[in-house]
Amino acid sequence: MTKGSINVSVENIFPLIKKFLYSDHEIFLRELISNATDATLKLKHLTSIGEAKVEYGNPQIEVKIDKDEKKLHIIDQGLGMTADEVEKYINQVAFSGAEEFLDKYKDAEKDAGIIGHFGLGFYSAFMVADKVEIITKSFKDEPAAHWTCDGSPEFTLEEADKTDRGTEIILHIAEDSTEFLEEARIRELLMKYNKFMPIPIKFGTKEINDPDFTPKTTKGKDGKETTEPHKQITVDDIINNPNPAWTKQPADLKDEDYSKFYRELYPMQFEEPLFNIHLNVDYPFNLTGILYFPKMTNDLNIQKDKIQLYQNQVFVTDNVEGIVPEFLTMLRGVIDSPDIPLNVSRSYLQADGNVKKISSYITRKVADKLKSLFNNNREDFEKKWNDIKIVIEYGMLSEEKFFEKADAFALYPTVDGKFYTFEELTNAIKAKQTDKDDKMVILYASNTDEQHSYIQAAKDKGYEVLLLDSPIVSHLMQKLETSKEHISFARVDADHIDNLIKKDDTTISKLSDEEKTKLDELLKDVVPSEKFMVQLEAMDSNASPFMITQPEFMRRMKEMQQTGGGGMFGMGNMPEMYNLVVNTNHDLVNEILNTKTKKKQERLINQSLDLARLSQGLLKGEELTNFIKRSYDMIK
Amino acid sequence: MTKGSINVSVENIFPLIKKFLYSDHEIFLRELISNATDATLKLKHLTSIGEAKVEYGNPQIEVKIDKDEKKLHIIDQGLGMTADEVEKYINQVAFSGAEEFLDKYKDAEKDAGIIGHFGLGFYSAFMVADKVEIITKSFKDEPAAHWTCDGSPEFTLEEADKTDRGTEIILHIAEDSTEFLEEARIRELLMKYNKFMPIPIKFGTKEINDPDFTPKTTKGKDGKETTEPHKQITVDDIINNPNPAWTKQPADLKDEDYSKFYRELYPMQFEEPLFNIHLNVDYPFNLTGILYFPKMTNDLNIQKDKIQLYQNQVFVTDNVEGIVPEFLTMLRGVIDSPDIPLNVSRSYLQADGNVKKISSYITRKVADKLKSLFNNNREDFEKKWNDIKIVIEYGMLSEEKFFEKADAFALYPTVDGKFYTFEELTNAIKAKQTDKDDKMVILYASNTDEQHSYIQAAKDKGYEVLLLDSPIVSHLMQKLETSKEHISFARVDADHIDNLIKKDDTTISKLSDEEKTKLDELLKDVVPSEKFMVQLEAMDSNASPFMITQPEFMRRMKEMQQTGGGGMFGMGNMPEMYNLVVNTNHDLVNEILNTKTKKKQERLINQSLDLARLSQGLLKGEELTNFIKRSYDMIK
Repeated sequence: MTKGSINVSVENIFPLIKKFLYSDHEIFLRELISNATDATLKLKHLTSIGEAKVEYGNPQIEVKIDKDEKKLHIIDQGLGMTADEVEKYINQVAFSGAEEFLDKYKDAEKDAGIIGHFGLGFYSAFMVADKVEIITKSFKDEPAAHWTCDGSPEFTLEEADKTDRGTEIILHIAEDSTEFLEEARIRELLMKYNKFMPIPIKFGTKEINDPDFTPKTTKGKDGKETTEPHKQITVDDIINNPNPAWTKQPADLKDEDYSKFYRELYPMQFEEPLFNIHLNVDYPFNLTGILYFPKMTNDLNIQKDKIQLYQNQVFVTDNVEGIVPEFLTMLRGVIDSPDIPLNVSRSYLQADGNVKKISSYITRKVADKLKSLFNNNREDFEKKWNDIKIVIEYGMLSEEKFFEKADAFALYPTVDGKFYTFEELTNAIKAKQTDKDDKMVILYASNTDEQHSYIQAAKDKGYEVLLLDSPIVSHLMQKLETSKEHISFARVDADHIDNLIKKDDTTISKLSDEEKTKLDELLKDVVPSEKFMVQLEAMDSNASPFMITQPEFMRRMKEMQQTGGGGMFGMGNMPEMYNLVVNTNHDLVNEILNTKTKKKQERLINQSLDLARLSQGLLKGEELTNFIKRSYDMIK
Repeated sequence: MTKGSINVSVENIFPLIKKFLYSDHEIFLRELISNATDATLKLKHLTSIGEAKVEYGNPQIEVKIDKDEKKLHIIDQGLGMTADEVEKYINQVAFSGAEEFLDKYKDAEKDAGIIGHFGLGFYSAFMVADKVEIITKSFKDEPAAHWTCDGSPEFTLEEADKTDRGTEIILHIAEDSTEFLEEARIRELLMKYNKFMPIPIKFGTKEINDPDFTPKTTKGKDGKETTEPHKQITVDDIINNPNPAWTKQPADLKDEDYSKFYRELYPMQFEEPLFNIHLNVDYPFNLTGILYFPKMTNDLNIQKDKIQLYQNQVFVTDNVEGIVPEFLTMLRGVIDSPDIPLNVSRSYLQADGNVKKISSYITRKVADKLKSLFNNNREDFEKKWNDIKIVIEYGMLSEEKFFEKADAFALYPTVDGKFYTFEELTNAIKAKQTDKDDKMVILYASNTDEQHSYIQAAKDKGYEVLLLDSPIVSHLMQKLETSKEHISFARVDADHIDNLIKKDDTTISKLSDEEKTKLDELLKDVVPSEKFMVQLEAMDSNASPFMITQPEFMRRMKEMQQTGGGGMFGMGNMPEMYNLVVNTNHDLVNEILNTKTKKKQERLINQSLDLARLSQGLLKGEELTNFIKRSYDMIK
């Protein structure tokens, strides 16, 4: 038996690191700036505990493009390295400096906020550069070092004359990566990955009005006033905000701070968010962040401006699937947590205990916030309901815990603009809308225009009609019917109103049984039976003579199938089914019966049927054109 | 100055490889099966050129779960390794065996179809296992070797008594990866990554009816026939199809082969695809594949069943953004090309010359196929038009080359179900639909029901009306108007038909100027001016008395904004604008003028206006309910 040690062949691993370290080459800049940030935060920590006897000052990180020489510089003012440390940290690939530092100063970990756990981060420079230099001066009293490597395993290391503390990385950008010499490209990357990193990042300079200069205004001979031009000065262009709102305490932030931060996150969003939720927890996991409820519009940016995931203020991804419960992925904002494992499959993520806890923490916080918004300013909450209902309804359907909590704030608006909680609704309608079998019938409409005459009929009876118009509401009704007792939902046009809420009292029919049979035969001759089931009803004589209804069950099953899942299999393809309810107590029906010629009877029935179809939106195309033509003739 | 060589520290790189080699741990299985496939294909090549004097046979790859021992086995019958080769290929991480092999047998590259260019592939085993064993017997006459490594750089290597050729990898699955001991999980991975790999993969066994056994039927005493049960035999369960359709020549495939393969790709798709396009090119790049035009439904699976990208029959991704032109991402199927760079950013991909060539090759092939389908069976093509038009129209808008080619097959259907090419359309309508300024006006409707009366009016004039109803068609009309000369599109309800196509002949008004003024005043008193611009027209006395129109330009700009981009800024938020066209030659208008009381005049105007609104779908809600009530009263 042989024993041995695996030999990692440098000649071969180097090009592989270069090629496969990260699937996205642009990551190199994030890695190098993370390293620079680490080096600065480490120095901060060492000075704070007195181990480094130097002035920490106001260090920044500078990124510079030298287009002529095809070089990109990343310069920090952190702790720097001695020649020995370069030897140790750089020449021994994958010896993660951050890990060793953390081992040594374990308790300080959180304060220092060290980013790097990517030991290979520095080497990602070789994904875009064919030569890399490091010029570095340690905070210790030792000479500066200059390291150069052309991507082969060979390097050179010599003394340098750098005197100011910190590290400068110089990338000699490779032929196939010249995009990284473009100012616009680098700015794009800085804005994507480093917008909220904790050390100021300088990228070039900009001209601003000198704040110490007040332009003088002088009066000329002609009496006209002239103001001298404002003095411009050149200042560093700091591209990041090192102290983003989510890292602060909620108590230290005002409404406008949250608004301002929203604009920082999504510069192209002009709508104000409806409200925000500040997340802040450190046990049993570490998580900070701010979530915003946006106004739901048809705007395509919804897809683009997603929740962003950070780890210690470094942007990681805007794919939070599996971390944030699905119904909240429609929100915007940031989540920052070092505790979310990143390099695992999404299915594993969803099974991870920590991640599950994070997800249910977020759900709970959102529910609590909604409840307090509702309690503190109900009027405002009602105003926003239309914009947030889709999120809440989706949450109620997909998360049982949220469904329970939502009972306290989920609203049920009426067609008249009133808003009830479920409990309030129950109390309001119990007396009138309980049928003879002791079931409470909740009436609703999906469109006040299209169902106007049916709504009117229900209101004439003194019933309350809800306006439930979101696309998934049929699923929610189904869920409410099974989780609450003795209730059922019925759309106002599902049947004649007296059938929707059946009471014991019955209206007496003006027609004799014989007349009814005659009427039924007459109607069946004219009304196409494949489209309408004729249903004779003794109703109030003021109610519509003809009315078209669509049974609740069938329609709802179809709707549920169309909005994905649920319902009953195959229902989606069933033809639409309608009933024609004829009010046997209406004068017009009498007239139909007593009209002499068959032809006139038919005309009366057809015109009435057309009017009934019109009020259900079923008269279309040629039939509508003919109806209109006929009606013009009748006016004349 | 010091010179030196970078030292890759094995102790540290090993856990990093483990953690960061692939962001998705599940990839390990794809890598190990790729290695097994390589080993088998290499043996095939060596036997074919006579360098290996062994029988190639019918080798397969076996995947076995040992749940009790927490082990996963991957066993191949490929060329195997001697102890020296294990030393060379395995112990020297990242010494890619495939690369060396390819160097040696360059010309044979394509025939052998070697997959592996991931030198680190084998080590991905350590992402899920804390101990890995290799037991391998080379095709050469040397003893078998047994290598064991527990994830530290230390390994042991000893002789083994394996006698059959090939390599067995044994993973001792780690605590945090026990998901990979589940049969369902492994089957899922095999189906995802290896469904079409070129060597049969065995995963367990299954029972099938013995094909050599014919059950006997016997007659009992009671005269009843009984058939003995079919004999079951146990066979290997081969989970993959080593010869998927796209690797074959189009000439060798029938229609049903393409259908069958579609079902293999998307087992949950029950709809047949409309047609397919077989891609096959080897210069200047290598690409094979089959694309399918699916029936576009509202089914959510469209999002799920996407084009799959393979490299040498190994599944890579179903994100083909940047590789396939955007308008074709709605198609389904596979693309297999070793020439697509994978580990680069999407923006780089889009700039890559090779990828650009691939994308335009695919575009050209799709256009050619559509053209030949049109030429060979126009009737069938017309039948499919509704299902494919969205893809073609989107392509015409986004790819100039496709726009030019589409002239030969893009269809313009009429409301009567005729289909024209643009050229045919021009010839058909030139004579009648050219206006006095020599512009050809193409009339269209977006909905035959909603615009029925307007369509009828155009048809009464002998005009042809197109039915253009896809969501992006307003953009396409805009493009056609600028690229073709002297044409313009007008929706039938954009104005009174005589104004849409203006001829020199004018209809004489029956009204005097004085009467016109009087009518105008009457109308303006009743018709709300913020909603309708009144427009008096001397039209045919049989045309509608009142008619509501919506100007083309404004409406189209609004539509273009709603479907994303184009149009004019801010148009999307403009209120709807309508004209009320009143036919001064209609009898009803005369009656309005001559009615004595103001009240009766108003009633006439209101009822006429309601009817006009009805035919444009503008009479809704309470107004419609009132109209219907009024109309019932009028019947009585």
